[in-house]
Amino acid sequence: MEQTPEGLGLGDSSLHRYLDGEFWSLKNELRRALESSPLFQPRYDLSLDEMRDLTNQRVKFVLSLPLLKRVLQDQEEKRNNFISQSFVLGEVLCMVDVSMSIKCGVIFLLFGGAVNNLGSPEHVIKWFRPLKEQKYTGMFAMTEKGHGSNIRGIQTEATFDCDSQEFVIDMPCENAQKMYIGNAMHGNYAAVFAQLIIEGKSQGPHCFIVPIRDENGNLYPGVTAIDMMYKEGLNGVDNGILIFDKVRIPRENMLDKLGSVTPDGQYHSPIQSKSARFNAMLAILTPSRLAVTFQAMGAMKLGLMIAIRYSHSRRQFGPKGKEEVKIIEHQMQALRLMSHLATALALTFTSRHAGHILDEDILQGRELINRRSLQALMAGLKAYSTWETVRCLQDCRECTGGMGYMMENRLSGLKCDTDVFVTFEGDNVVMLQVVARELLAQYSKQHKKNPFLGMIQNWTETAMDKLRTSFLVFNTDTVGHLAFLLKAVNFRERVLQRSLVSRIYYKVVTEKGDFFRAWNSCMHHVISLSLAHVHRVALEQFTLAVRQCPNREDQALLMKLLNLCESVKDDSLKVISAFNIPHTTIHAPTAGTPNTGAAEAFSPAPTQPLVQNGTRSRLAKL
Amino acid sequence: MEQTPEGLGLGDSSLHRYLDGEFWSLKNELRRALESSPLFQPRYDLSLDEMRDLTNQRVKFVLSLPLLKRVLQDQEEKRNNFISQSFVLGEVLCMVDVSMSIKCGVIFLLFGGAVNNLGSPEHVIKWFRPLKEQKYTGMFAMTEKGHGSNIRGIQTEATFDCDSQEFVIDMPCENAQKMYIGNAMHGNYAAVFAQLIIEGKSQGPHCFIVPIRDENGNLYPGVTAIDMMYKEGLNGVDNGILIFDKVRIPRENMLDKLGSVTPDGQYHSPIQSKSARFNAMLAILTPSRLAVTFQAMGAMKLGLMIAIRYSHSRRQFGPKGKEEVKIIEHQMQALRLMSHLATALALTFTSRHAGHILDEDILQGRELINRRSLQALMAGLKAYSTWETVRCLQDCRECTGGMGYMMENRLSGLKCDTDVFVTFEGDNVVMLQVVARELLAQYSKQHKKNPFLGMIQNWTETAMDKLRTSFLVFNTDTVGHLAFLLKAVNFRERVLQRSLVSRIYYKVVTEKGDFFRAWNSCMHHVISLSLAHVHRVALEQFTLAVRQCPNREDQALLMKLLNLCESVKDDSLKVISAFNIPHTTIHAPTAGTPNTGAAEAFSPAPTQPLVQNGTRSRLAKL
Ligand SMILES: Cc1cc2nc3c(=O)[nH]c(=O)nc-3n(C[C@H](O)[C@H](O)[C@H](O)COP(=O)(O)OP(=O)(O)OC[C@H]3O[C@@H](n4cnc5c(N)ncnc54)[C@H](O)[C@@H]3O)c2cc1C
Ligand SMILES: Cc1cc2nc3c(=O)[nH]c(=O)nc-3n(C[C@H](O)[C@H](O)[C@H](O)COP(=O)(O)OP(=O)(O)OC[C@H]3O[C@@H](n4cnc5c(N)ncnc54)[C@H](O)[C@@H]3O)c2cc1C
Repeated sequence: MEQTPEGLGLGDSSLHRYLDGEFWSLKNELRRALESSPLFQPRYDLSLDEMRDLTNQRVKFVLSLPLLKRVLQDQEEKRNNFISQSFVLGEVLCMVDVSMSIKCGVIFLLFGGAVNNLGSPEHVIKWFRPLKEQKYTGMFAMTEKGHGSNIRGIQTEATFDCDSQEFVIDMPCENAQKMYIGNAMHGNYAAVFAQLIIEGKSQGPHCFIVPIRDENGNLYPGVTAIDMMYKEGLNGVDNGILIFDKVRIPRENMLDKLGSVTPDGQYHSPIQSKSARFNAMLAILTPSRLAVTFQAMGAMKLGLMIAIRYSHSRRQFGPKGKEEVKIIEHQMQALRLMSHLATALALTFTSRHAGHILDEDILQGRELINRRSLQALMAGLKAYSTWETVRCLQDCRECTGGMGYMMENRLSGLKCDTDVFVTFEGDNVVMLQVVARELLAQYSKQHKKNPFLGMIQNWTETAMDKLRTSFLVFNTDTVGHLAFLLKAVNFRERVLQRSLVSRIYYKVVTEKGDFFRAWNSCMHHVISLSLAHVHRVALEQFTLAVRQCPNREDQALLMKLLNLCESVKDDSLKVISAFNIPHTTIHAPTAGTPNTGAAEAFSPAPTQPLVQNGTRSRLAKL
Repeated sequence: MEQTPEGLGLGDSSLHRYLDGEFWSLKNELRRALESSPLFQPRYDLSLDEMRDLTNQRVKFVLSLPLLKRVLQDQEEKRNNFISQSFVLGEVLCMVDVSMSIKCGVIFLLFGGAVNNLGSPEHVIKWFRPLKEQKYTGMFAMTEKGHGSNIRGIQTEATFDCDSQEFVIDMPCENAQKMYIGNAMHGNYAAVFAQLIIEGKSQGPHCFIVPIRDENGNLYPGVTAIDMMYKEGLNGVDNGILIFDKVRIPRENMLDKLGSVTPDGQYHSPIQSKSARFNAMLAILTPSRLAVTFQAMGAMKLGLMIAIRYSHSRRQFGPKGKEEVKIIEHQMQALRLMSHLATALALTFTSRHAGHILDEDILQGRELINRRSLQALMAGLKAYSTWETVRCLQDCRECTGGMGYMMENRLSGLKCDTDVFVTFEGDNVVMLQVVARELLAQYSKQHKKNPFLGMIQNWTETAMDKLRTSFLVFNTDTVGHLAFLLKAVNFRERVLQRSLVSRIYYKVVTEKGDFFRAWNSCMHHVISLSLAHVHRVALEQFTLAVRQCPNREDQALLMKLLNLCESVKDDSLKVISAFNIPHTTIHAPTAGTPNTGAAEAFSPAPTQPLVQNGTRSRLAKL
């Protein structure tokens, strides 16, 4: 690994820059800033409270960095590229400490995102500014005991009380308790999703800022917080249950972009249909799903860095009578790791692409609500990237043998911390159904005349635009035999799409079955279609990125990965080096980097000196 | 779940007995004994030292049980079925605490197994008896820093010193350090594998009993132990590095079944070839691999119990306007869990079958050394079962949503603890190569005339017998369309086998390549063949077990699972109930069982009472 003057191992070759992307210098700035503090040494010896304290300190440190303030200012002002910038920072943070990255995400992308995107400009001034200045911290309270994936069914209620000009936040049953809420044991305010009750009738879920505890930690009247304690990972994040018993908040605490209540209790909304309103709300919140993809990618790249470096140094077995070979030379070892390396690159380019679309939309004043295809892309990428991360880290762990099981080599921690990525921000199986619904809607739009297809379109609601992913317009000659693969994945997707349409048509129209049942009986097909779609998009983006790569040598290297050439294993060190992960972030002895900060981890600390002098006692007899 | 008088939820229907197998009453005895002690409440709040202490206490408790003493006595006397019995106990222990189960395994199957199987009757009396009586504990020191999978290359040396009649155990280099050794921070004696040096020449690895520390914890002169500290899981087991600096042990401490040194320094062995001797030693130790399969199965069954019970109670989404459905009704949920349930059953019957062969061999006085096919079966089962366990527990975790990520629902802990099963006792990729070598040897035996095949046979050494797994002699009509599947998997295996032979033939004979390279370039093929083989054997054993099931109703139910019928999800509660896991072992609130012992885990411990009376302060202003 090349050493820069600072000794962080950061490089800035053309490949480094291309893989790091447009914001490479911002990322490097953050990398350098993090490495300047001893706070970020990995620790394994801490109690739950200590881990949470350390995470809070890390979050505080990060949020005090000038560059973070700049990006948050951009977020507040919705300046160009603010979304992509915050995503790449999440990726870098994740490599240092997943808990810290997630906690920053809860505070700024989830709570802050709700304020910025569901609130009015006044809300932004009142709530986002002081948040940014670390005057308080927030949480995001959507999930309930009874409703996780099916958010539409949440039961917490916000009832307007005209007399006091307050909303009363209440829970009619145990199932309405807010669960898993990140920062619940420390945060001050929560963005709470509740059914808005006007004249005894629900207008669907809306979002309210509810005080949880003051700066001294005293809970607000009517609020109960229950600690959910130990998890498989992310133990630096305090998740808890929030219970509201007739908690009163001022009328102004309702985030009112999609619906508001006048002082005399009248409800107004720019969107008439309750269902459309709900979808609009969810749509506004989807960018945080793409943030998860970037974080997952960060973990994946770090994992690959560790496993690939180890595989290039560890030797085991070999031809008779000769030196043992590096384990990367064992075919299975190379196959397992190289396919993940290619996936990590495909994800790098695809998620970057999705981030660009998001930023461009904001620049063009397009509302995410009307961009179902983009929502579907983000849902699909979230599912695909997080499953690939689980698989990749598992293989990295296995491919480093016993070393991979030791905490100080970080793979185990990365695995445990990122495992929940498949569940939160939308369960993957549910996410892929969002993708399939959009693909069916697109199909129906293309075949408007057929009445059944109208029905599908109706069911999936409006399909405003086509997935903006099919722009593979370059000459296929330049990509050689890849052209065939691209055609094949395209074809697979179309076949799955058409056959799904006809299966559902048969079940619903011919057999007059109910839709839920028909869909459910095709769910394996649905999931296959959605994954085929994401694979196709990712392959296209990877191909496009290779084609657009400005440096010929880099291009040739990336092409080898894209084609998964056998020789790629020999170049893999170069590729992981271009991930630009500072030496001092890796902390994995197996990767040839020290884990100095963790004295309690395994680094030779003999209980007795290696060479013993003096008398030797005889064998102790039993 | 049906309640027995004791409230453990143990059942004894015909299905319970059939799934629990021949030793169901022994298993129940252990289950009841474990539940009688408060020691086995799960804890998540412990420091590393506390976890290890608790594990040691648990191990001590288990070893003091009369039934354990009985089984250990059987082990010492090699009584009928002692192997199968110890395996099923390992399965039961694993459900209660994987660390405890592994630590018992290290002490009795690994250290104890080395003494019993590599030592003389005198060794058994001298070392196994006091071990059994908990006079001391042992460890198994084979792996070195430089050699994990490739044990043949270990570098620790044992040199005979005629003058003192002692062996000197020494390490010529850092790579010779013994690594990952379980019980290294507590144990008293280690079975150490070292190159036996006679007149400056190595006779290959042999096993020696080396004192590590006395009962007061003082290390023996020349011994250094380094704590390896935190791991992804199994933190109740203390793994460490052992370093030997000219450690002297009496001549009698060499386990001498496969080779011995006379007082005047002469080496004798019943096996002339050094390589054959080494293989014989490994063969003798293979039963512990089958023990891992039983332990993996225990974890898998417990995981399925939790995830399937949850899926039958949790509701989410549903047809418009109707009650939400149980999540098991979502097709993907059922597909994911039911396929693992079928695998768990296939493994139950297949591992039981392998255990029976082992016990029968001992009864018949057959030596495991000569049973390459059985060794291959155990290696293949170890790889297949542990990979399936990783996949199964991952799906169980994901299928229980956020709940599955909470420690108190046990899935996370099971995942972390069993993750290393794919690595220790032989890395899975290496294990599957053992299987393929045996399959090639069998092929060559069947085609003796071809000189190339002779070469293969030579390389894989002797192939004494055929895999005893192809006895599917019953009428295929009785298994209906399964017959086709059985034929298909059989065919797949044969095709892969033949094509592998011809690929290697071409590379080695026609192209005159070296064997290591040829093999390596076919490794993906090798692994596919081996997995195809294990799948075939497992399917056959499952089919056979269904066929032999004495109760018609149970048989019909098992048949549904074997065929993965859609309706199986409705019967799945019945099947998991017949796993006979005591209520009090589950400890997973999501499975409807309390986790009382873990007060520190998430079970409602409000930081403020649910209903608050008294004055309400106004909203705290920012
Ligand atoms: C560590 C952690 C942190 C979290 N942080 C927050 C937070 O800060 N704020 C917040 O509001 N929430 C948070 N959550 C909650 C998280 O968003 C939910 O756990 C997630 O949405 C899944 O919901 P669930 O757990 O209820 O699972 P369920 O929805 O009950 O899913 C269980 C199973 O049912 C299946 N399933 C459900 N519906 C369908 C369907 N239609 N088709 C097929 N299969 C289906 C799923 O695939 C899954 O296998 C957090 C969760 C965790 C674990
Ligand atoms: C928790 C734990 C407890 C343990 N307890 C003990 C104990 O009590 N006593 C003891 O002696 N040992 C113990 N071990 C050691 C364990 O047996 C080894 O870790 C295991 O044998 C793998 O060896 P390794 O770690 O050196 O991995 P390596 O052999 O270095 O393997 C690393 C990678 O190389 C690949 N590879 C290696 N050879 C080949 C090949 N020929 N073909 C293809 N791929 C290959 C592997 O698949 C793997 O992906 C323990 C290990 C752990 C983690």
